[in-house]
Amino acid sequence: MTAVKVGVIGVGMIGQDHIRRLTKVLAGSAVVAVTDVDQARARSVADGVPGARAHATGQDLIRDDAVDAVVVTSWGPTHEEYVLACIEAGKPVFCEKPLATTQEACLRILDAEMAAGRRLVQVGYMRRYDPAYRALKETVAGGAIGTPLLMHCAHRNPNVPSHYTSDMAINDTTVHDVDTVRWLLDDEVVATQVLVPRRNSRAGELRDPLFVLFEMAGGAIVDVEVSVNIGYGYDIRGEISGETGTASLAESNPVVVKREGSFGGRVPADWRERFLRAFDLEFQEWLGAAAEGTATGPSAWDGYAATAVCDAALEALHTGSRTTVSLRERPSFYR
Amino acid sequence: MTAVKVGVIGVGMIGQDHIRRLTKVLAGSAVVAVTDVDQARARSVADGVPGARAHATGQDLIRDDAVDAVVVTSWGPTHEEYVLACIEAGKPVFCEKPLATTQEACLRILDAEMAAGRRLVQVGYMRRYDPAYRALKETVAGGAIGTPLLMHCAHRNPNVPSHYTSDMAINDTTVHDVDTVRWLLDDEVVATQVLVPRRNSRAGELRDPLFVLFEMAGGAIVDVEVSVNIGYGYDIRGEISGETGTASLAESNPVVVKREGSFGGRVPADWRERFLRAFDLEFQEWLGAAAEGTATGPSAWDGYAATAVCDAALEALHTGSRTTVSLRERPSFYR
Amino acid sequence: MTAVKVGVIGVGMIGQDHIRRLTKVLAGSAVVAVTDVDQARARSVADGVPGARAHATGQDLIRDDAVDAVVVTSWGPTHEEYVLACIEAGKPVFCEKPLATTQEACLRILDAEMAAGRRLVQVGYMRRYDPAYRALKETVAGGAIGTPLLMHCAHRNPNVPSHYTSDMAINDTTVHDVDTVRWLLDDEVVATQVLVPRRNSRAGELRDPLFVLFEMAGGAIVDVEVSVNIGYGYDIRGEISGETGTASLAESNPVVVKREGSFGGRVPADWRERFLRAFDLEFQEWLGAAAEGTATGPSAWDGYAATAVCDAALEALHTGSRTTVSLRERPSFYR
Amino acid sequence: MTAVKVGVIGVGMIGQDHIRRLTKVLAGSAVVAVTDVDQARARSVADGVPGARAHATGQDLIRDDAVDAVVVTSWGPTHEEYVLACIEAGKPVFCEKPLATTQEACLRILDAEMAAGRRLVQVGYMRRYDPAYRALKETVAGGAIGTPLLMHCAHRNPNVPSHYTSDMAINDTTVHDVDTVRWLLDDEVVATQVLVPRRNSRAGELRDPLFVLFEMAGGAIVDVEVSVNIGYGYDIRGEISGETGTASLAESNPVVVKREGSFGGRVPADWRERFLRAFDLEFQEWLGAAAEGTATGPSAWDGYAATAVCDAALEALHTGSRTTVSLRERPSFYR
Repeated sequence: MTAVKVGVIGVGMIGQDHIRRLTKVLAGSAVVAVTDVDQARARSVADGVPGARAHATGQDLIRDDAVDAVVVTSWGPTHEEYVLACIEAGKPVFCEKPLATTQEACLRILDAEMAAGRRLVQVGYMRRYDPAYRALKETVAGGAIGTPLLMHCAHRNPNVPSHYTSDMAINDTTVHDVDTVRWLLDDEVVATQVLVPRRNSRAGELRDPLFVLFEMAGGAIVDVEVSVNIGYGYDIRGEISGETGTASLAESNPVVVKREGSFGGRVPADWRERFLRAFDLEFQEWLGAAAEGTATGPSAWDGYAATAVCDAALEALHTGSRTTVSLRERPSFYR
Repeated sequence: MTAVKVGVIGVGMIGQDHIRRLTKVLAGSAVVAVTDVDQARARSVADGVPGARAHATGQDLIRDDAVDAVVVTSWGPTHEEYVLACIEAGKPVFCEKPLATTQEACLRILDAEMAAGRRLVQVGYMRRYDPAYRALKETVAGGAIGTPLLMHCAHRNPNVPSHYTSDMAINDTTVHDVDTVRWLLDDEVVATQVLVPRRNSRAGELRDPLFVLFEMAGGAIVDVEVSVNIGYGYDIRGEISGETGTASLAESNPVVVKREGSFGGRVPADWRERFLRAFDLEFQEWLGAAAEGTATGPSAWDGYAATAVCDAALEALHTGSRTTVSLRERPSFYR
Repeated sequence: MTAVKVGVIGVGMIGQDHIRRLTKVLAGSAVVAVTDVDQARARSVADGVPGARAHATGQDLIRDDAVDAVVVTSWGPTHEEYVLACIEAGKPVFCEKPLATTQEACLRILDAEMAAGRRLVQVGYMRRYDPAYRALKETVAGGAIGTPLLMHCAHRNPNVPSHYTSDMAINDTTVHDVDTVRWLLDDEVVATQVLVPRRNSRAGELRDPLFVLFEMAGGAIVDVEVSVNIGYGYDIRGEISGETGTASLAESNPVVVKREGSFGGRVPADWRERFLRAFDLEFQEWLGAAAEGTATGPSAWDGYAATAVCDAALEALHTGSRTTVSLRERPSFYR
Repeated sequence: MTAVKVGVIGVGMIGQDHIRRLTKVLAGSAVVAVTDVDQARARSVADGVPGARAHATGQDLIRDDAVDAVVVTSWGPTHEEYVLACIEAGKPVFCEKPLATTQEACLRILDAEMAAGRRLVQVGYMRRYDPAYRALKETVAGGAIGTPLLMHCAHRNPNVPSHYTSDMAINDTTVHDVDTVRWLLDDEVVATQVLVPRRNSRAGELRDPLFVLFEMAGGAIVDVEVSVNIGYGYDIRGEISGETGTASLAESNPVVVKREGSFGGRVPADWRERFLRAFDLEFQEWLGAAAEGTATGPSAWDGYAATAVCDAALEALHTGSRTTVSLRERPSFYR
């Protein structure tokens, strides 16, 4: 396997973590170029990566012949521009969520990628690489519980930063569940409803928790508890109820301790602890596809659908009403 | 403790099981009288219980001076009449659910009991006596998870008899969850919604599963998966999500077996296996109160509220709309 | 079922608890007579049980025609005398462990019972009535794991009273495991070894923990961790490893709580909490057999074997050597 | 991080798997040289690795200036020679177990490494890198259960190849537990005993299972069930019992499935599934140390101690007696 030469657009905390992953954890790549809206930061990061240079702009980086493939971790509103440029340059691109901040922008990316004639875009929904979610999908796909009829999810954060808003609970938090249920159930969301329970007294002005419902095209119903100030840990739950059985994510504790009157195991402290391995596997698979000049995993279509569902869920949250989701007809390219 | 002399109205399968419980399992009672709409069956059952006589009617039985307390397990529409007669006679009465088949009938019972000036009625919501549910209530009441904000329930039956209807899924099945969440959260249901997921292909014409939502007066939201043809077992789940933690019913398997590639435990086969102990404890506490000439546990108010909530849920099922629940103001007698 | 009229010899804490069980919990008996080495205590207890009288001696109580069956919970060295008298009187007797304090005394009881021609003696090894142990036995007997080859046990107490000795760790604590493994594996112990690990610093002068090994006649090997100052709870573990699988006692927690970084369940605080139900079921079955004039469950043979194994284990503890167990050939009466 | 240039001696199944790991999974290395007793195989493997050449002998490979560090996965009896040559060449060496086949050979390696003045040798006890074992060690080292007094282990294989012998049950199977308990308890084994339970009827002539006991210098006692034909899966269990609590390896199933009357999770099928991640982490840490010209993790001392304990356990198996372990005094170099 020849090393994939990667350029990274946006070297904030997440961008730097992906550089660490590419240079110190995974085989198969070299980081050869970086850029950032903060040019001093870009130069400083480049200095720490032997063989990497700093570019003035993302467009420069994408045009650089030394760059085989691109990682986009810049500010959301810039994603469309960089992803379109990568497609035009024929370079595989890994784009952190969101693919783009509007459905229209997402559709422009779909059109461009279809015009390019092959998949170049992978969106950063890392849960699809989590070994537990993968085992869940395999279990259900293997028929162990019959056709799925309901799915119960919980997305619990110990706390959120002070700038976190109720809209972010949909766009930044629930969006992961949107992608997960679409992928697990192999189906699209057609309607959504957001109920607002009694407010957590630790949540300040935030509408927290939320209780989000999704109706799938095939009739399955999904509920998601979104609790972002629950304190006890970062806890991602999922249970699929089928015609003849159920399958759910197990606890992830490696050890059971008995002391002081009880037995138990650890709940992950944060998303890094819970999904560290998923991030590594996500990039491993991306590199494998990029080495072949293409992409795998969550596609531009998945990015578009997630944005459309979140738009509907936001409307449902604001209006208190059930809201339908209208997607463009799915092109055969994305089937 | 002097033995409580019990009369049993209705000696079908459940009535006979309670007679077995009173005569062969629990200390503190003697079954002295029985009656049934099928008089031959009443005589036959009386023959098997030393010291018991068969009465022609429930009213005769209630009037019998040898009877201290009454168990009503006859057909639902007859409950009101017998419970009112017991109240009039000043005799403690254990009435299987429903307390009565209409809210109006329930209210007549409330009025009669309040006029009598002391609790005489206990309704047969046995889950309140299940050791696991009790531990759940204690945990939450003890403050371990903060104020409850959501509750997730599942009521799964392996299968149902051929005469089972979608209305029974509310009135006979979900009604247990109604009582349970009212009791666990110490709160009333104010609105309900019933979603109908894709139909289980094993369910014939039945709308199965259902996904029932309850909004509580205090703002908590409750969801209940009602799946009555899930095949794998009788599985009653409950998880309360609070401000700082969660509490849920554990699996009830006594043994873990490892074989053929997996480890695991047994799911109860039916409600008898799951709630056998709850039935015993329910009657033990009823006898204790009856010996004092009064009642404990689920009250006539609880029977009334359950009926009112089920009426609303039925309407929600039939209309597809969120439906509010209107209860009479709760009398201080029932606080 | 006519009530069994029971006399209780020894009304200390355990005797009084059994009287509570017989009069307030279980159907099918009446306590009609009590006695105690402390006659004032006997009279006081009798006063609290309507219909019960106090006898001056155990022999008087056994001779009392009003007494159908006897419970012996007096001091261990007195057991032989009372059990022999019950056999002579043809009255079923429930004897708390030990059956007798020497093997010779046990053998005298065996001989007397065989001469009487029917089982009259039940020894108080209550674990055989614990629903979890019963499920474990059923699982193994049903062939789910193949022939048992090893069993791993732990007997953990949070703490012990100050008068507790290392010999009591064998005679009063490990004796329960002796009976349990004999019953679960349906086999006799033929040799034993006691290893003494590093001392628990909380154990004072006590040799605690102990690690006890049993070799069974059929070749299975059993290990028992006996830790009596482990603090965290009363925890009884058992895992049988067979030719094709394993079966073990599950945790007994009714509820799982997530809070403060971990999830978990409660460990029982003491033997009452862990085995409360077993005691009730033990007496329920004893009453059923006593009503028929006989006995069931752990027999005089089991009491004898337990004593013989504990004698060998004590020698093994004192000498540090593997010690064999010599039992009389098992009479067909006890098969 | 500059890539560590690795030479691999022995390119059978395990050697090839390590080459895959170094070239396709982990960042930080290049495989530049291989050799094998089967020279055709060495050439064939080299052809598949861009930049790698095949050497005629291990000594040639070690002398090759292009080689920074060496992986030894050849036949056990050849390990001593290659490890000594690596030490002489001052090159870090990862040696699969055993370090050497005799205690004397191990001691020669210790002496050579001490003479070299810095650690160069890492032995392939991969369990120390398993996340679950690491969490177990952290838990115990953090004081959560007090001083460890006992440890209960099980090493269960579904089956073994036909050439497997009872001696291999000690040398190839139990040896992992030897290293694990030494590391977890941070203590040396001073005596061992091997009990032979009833034979598994699936085990043919093999003495299977075995029940191995270790006494640690500090007084803790360890038991290990070694069952290598148990069929149901590859199941590695470990529970440490301390003064105030216990800590044990949790089940590793990612998903819980409910179907057909039970709930449960998967047991790993084989050691690859169970320890895949440990192998990756083991090499990641080795590469990190090798890049600094040194070694980390299981040392030559650990390899020597494991060999000495296995020698004693073999004698204990053959004689049926408790056997003591005599280690050279531990040099400060290895503390």
